Amino acid sequence: MADQNEIYVGKKPVMNYVLAVVTQFNQGAKEVHIKARGRAISKAVDVAEIVRNRFITDAKVKEITIGTEEVQGENGPTKVSAIDIVLVRE
Amino acid sequence: MADQNEIYVGKKPVMNYVLAVVTQFNQGAKEVHIKARGRAISKAVDVAEIVRNRFITDAKVKEITIGTEEVQGENGPTKVSAIDIVLVRE
Repeated sequence: MADQNEIYVGKKPVMNYVLAVVTQFNQGAKEVHIKARGRAISKAVDVAEIVRNRFITDAKVKEITIGTEEVQGENGPTKVSAIDIVLVRE
Repeated sequence: MADQNEIYVGKKPVMNYVLAVVTQFNQGAKEVHIKARGRAISKAVDVAEIVRNRFITDAKVKEITIGTEEVQGENGPTKVSAIDIVLVRE
């Protein structure tokens, strides 16, 4: 298993992503990246907080980075914000 | 003027907050905190990215912290995620 695991947060219910992250940690991952773009960014923060507060209480936020990505929209390329939240288990 | 300036991102259009942050920097602020809760978190990231990419190009993200806050909802207290993005001008 790779050391770097990534969960992309999108339109599904928040608990789907929480369980995906918890599963990664329980399978031995040392750190998990929670990534999202656009409006899903708020949900990515929810995922990180729910994982830390309710499921993996020894997980910590190692780093949070934000950036801008270009995506293909209906009217050509548009820019969206993106986030990457890195949770680590001590 | 205090060294620590805070902009709370809410329901107004994103450019309102962008201009508020830009104004703080142009008035001499060394760092500005962009704060939001719940669904406004995505907009706070947009604000930080637009400020950095279009207006204050020497501004950098110093730190991003996330947390959980309790707010009074219609059905008693509920928990919401929160973010604090610190932009600094070098």
